[in-house]
Amino acid sequence: MRTHIEHAAAAAELLAPLATQLELLSETVPLSDAVGRVLAVDVTSPISLPRFANSQMDGYAVRAADLAAASTGAPVRLPVGPTSAAGDPVGTLAPGTASPVMTGAAVPDGADAVVPIEQCDPAHFVGIGGDAHDAPTGTTVRFSAPVAPGTFVRAVGTDIREGALLLPAGTRLGPAQLGSLAAAGIIGAPVRPVPRVLVLSTGHELRSPGARLDPVADSGAIYDSNSTMMAAAVTAAGAIAVTASAPDDADAVVDAVEQHPDVDLVVTTGGVSAGAFEVVRDALEPLGVEFGPVAMQPGGPQGLGTALLPSGRRMPVLAFPGNPVSALISFELFLRPLLRGFAGLPARRRTERGVLAHAVTSPSARHQVRRGTVRADGSVEVGAPSSHLLHAYATANALVQLPVGVDSLPAGAEVEIWRIDD
Amino acid sequence: MRTHIEHAAAAAELLAPLATQLELLSETVPLSDAVGRVLAVDVTSPISLPRFANSQMDGYAVRAADLAAASTGAPVRLPVGPTSAAGDPVGTLAPGTASPVMTGAAVPDGADAVVPIEQCDPAHFVGIGGDAHDAPTGTTVRFSAPVAPGTFVRAVGTDIREGALLLPAGTRLGPAQLGSLAAAGIIGAPVRPVPRVLVLSTGHELRSPGARLDPVADSGAIYDSNSTMMAAAVTAAGAIAVTASAPDDADAVVDAVEQHPDVDLVVTTGGVSAGAFEVVRDALEPLGVEFGPVAMQPGGPQGLGTALLPSGRRMPVLAFPGNPVSALISFELFLRPLLRGFAGLPARRRTERGVLAHAVTSPSARHQVRRGTVRADGSVEVGAPSSHLLHAYATANALVQLPVGVDSLPAGAEVEIWRIDD
Repeated sequence: MRTHIEHAAAAAELLAPLATQLELLSETVPLSDAVGRVLAVDVTSPISLPRFANSQMDGYAVRAADLAAASTGAPVRLPVGPTSAAGDPVGTLAPGTASPVMTGAAVPDGADAVVPIEQCDPAHFVGIGGDAHDAPTGTTVRFSAPVAPGTFVRAVGTDIREGALLLPAGTRLGPAQLGSLAAAGIIGAPVRPVPRVLVLSTGHELRSPGARLDPVADSGAIYDSNSTMMAAAVTAAGAIAVTASAPDDADAVVDAVEQHPDVDLVVTTGGVSAGAFEVVRDALEPLGVEFGPVAMQPGGPQGLGTALLPSGRRMPVLAFPGNPVSALISFELFLRPLLRGFAGLPARRRTERGVLAHAVTSPSARHQVRRGTVRADGSVEVGAPSSHLLHAYATANALVQLPVGVDSLPAGAEVEIWRIDD
Repeated sequence: MRTHIEHAAAAAELLAPLATQLELLSETVPLSDAVGRVLAVDVTSPISLPRFANSQMDGYAVRAADLAAASTGAPVRLPVGPTSAAGDPVGTLAPGTASPVMTGAAVPDGADAVVPIEQCDPAHFVGIGGDAHDAPTGTTVRFSAPVAPGTFVRAVGTDIREGALLLPAGTRLGPAQLGSLAAAGIIGAPVRPVPRVLVLSTGHELRSPGARLDPVADSGAIYDSNSTMMAAAVTAAGAIAVTASAPDDADAVVDAVEQHPDVDLVVTTGGVSAGAFEVVRDALEPLGVEFGPVAMQPGGPQGLGTALLPSGRRMPVLAFPGNPVSALISFELFLRPLLRGFAGLPARRRTERGVLAHAVTSPSARHQVRRGTVRADGSVEVGAPSSHLLHAYATANALVQLPVGVDSLPAGAEVEIWRIDD
């Protein structure tokens, strides 16, 4: 029987062509829509940043040479020249003068250092502020120490030079990355497309949430939770979910897939087991999708492969079991890491070691994934294994991994857990 | 001087009324739009789950008492009754018969156990599948062992009972939670509103990305990166960002705030320092926002408080410095944890210990936050401290924390880092 590791590798292989395709395509979106998107190409900076020498402090721009005499202990007094406030064009510092310069404002040509205002005498700006841009003629300022050239000056191109690599292809665009693009004057980000996933729920027993259930005719019916759940899982992993459902009829399953020619991948739930009525298997096995057991619990019966549709299109398919817990665990193991990778996100859940609060048993031949609760002290309460316990899953904060070969573990044993609460 | 811890506490206090308000309000959204939203109220389950006893396996539903004779070693042969497939109404098991039952299908009334098909003889279903719902009259099945009552039957209400707490107020809605609501037949989730944040960039020097810059008149101008960056940061933290900009004019700043009566909070960038032209300070200090230094680098000058606007409205304001790196670090320390909390997300960055790859220095009186790169071996390369190095921030994967009291650390010293790459 295939291990879950082998099945995950098969899923990665199945989606390798999609991964390649996503890396080759590019669409340009406004930066405001690009949060969380992934750069399609290397982006070089069209300008140097900073684009002009600017001040790191509020203070006076000076020629360092003009303050050299202060090294003897005798203060140097200089006349105050025009102010450089943020946004002012780059000016010129007349030799033997000092110009007020604000943080981020241009250091005038000719100046090579900034003396912070609190080291000057007076230690505040005189005669400027509000509508008064420049100090009155005749204003002077005194410096009691020399300054090294370059002090508190942010030189042109010290963050990045024009033409240099700003961000490489594959970068996920968060706040700092988008800010960096904007700072370089770029208005649109060339990003990879987001994969579209058809979430297809199957089963005669399914009713839409909110539907009235007849006490007799619908006594064996359930509300469809997989559509909502799997679409949310796909969305949360950074892809686009499209939902559809098909009753237990093989032709209807194939039709539902054919009706969504714009998706990159199909995920089905239900109809994959060894029962007498396995509609997904009946529909897709003849088209090339392979079905069989995987050594895991829950989620043992799985289907995976490329379906050659009647229309001639080829469609990658992951077929998960219909029990919601089985379906979501299957998603965790086989699809979430791949979708997260497409979205430039870390593939794996945050993994920790926990200590069992009580003894557990597990089928030794299968990798069991239990839903549990990790306490602040690292102790782990493990929930019941049954795959119908979706509510218990919804209140858990961790997936407890019980590998093949484990049939029982005592209280206090160390286990690997995946945090699912972030 | 206030510490960054004290300032963060002041920010939490400033937004405490907003936190309370968000917890009191509720809007109902379709489950498909509710990914990542936070439940406003406790939700109880309108039905029991499972709502009918169903089978955990493909097999035969039986009365356990009918197989008791198999305990002597003599097989028991029973006539095969009507099939229970997924979605079929709940039937009744005639005494002394066995009914095919599929995984998830209703266990008929009268049956109290399921024997998996692989333990039966024959070990496959005979005469059913496809259009044949029931086995031909006269079909029998043989059991070689007894079965305990309850075996492989999922009893009504074992996941949750009608009327019990399904999910408590404050739950963040991910796939399992939304699946759980759908399974209970719920179509709309009562969720807390998402806070709206006005991101207000100020500064004469700012030009929109994409604008042509005049070589002379715009020689001291820069592209506005804070609007894009802070909006992305707000969005990524689970809130709604609204952007606006104001030139360096106090009235324009106040007007920009007044023009957005629907926001819950204003974040400004720029104009908070001790320079001669500090427009945000000039605009908002008279309205009640307090400005002053915080013992951190970058991001020292900060403003925080409730502005009493000319219209009479009160608006919480966080005023960050204008340097993009300073602004984003300020967001990390003071606002991101609060917005994440509103969104039901863990407030803190993933924190690790790293080992310095080289010596660093830091201003002892301030908490310094450096941008760095953590390698797979846990070694940390620390970038330069200057707050204009946004590109370097965009290529970092960690924030390196150098606390007050640290003036230098040698290579090999352990430091706290916050991962920013997830």
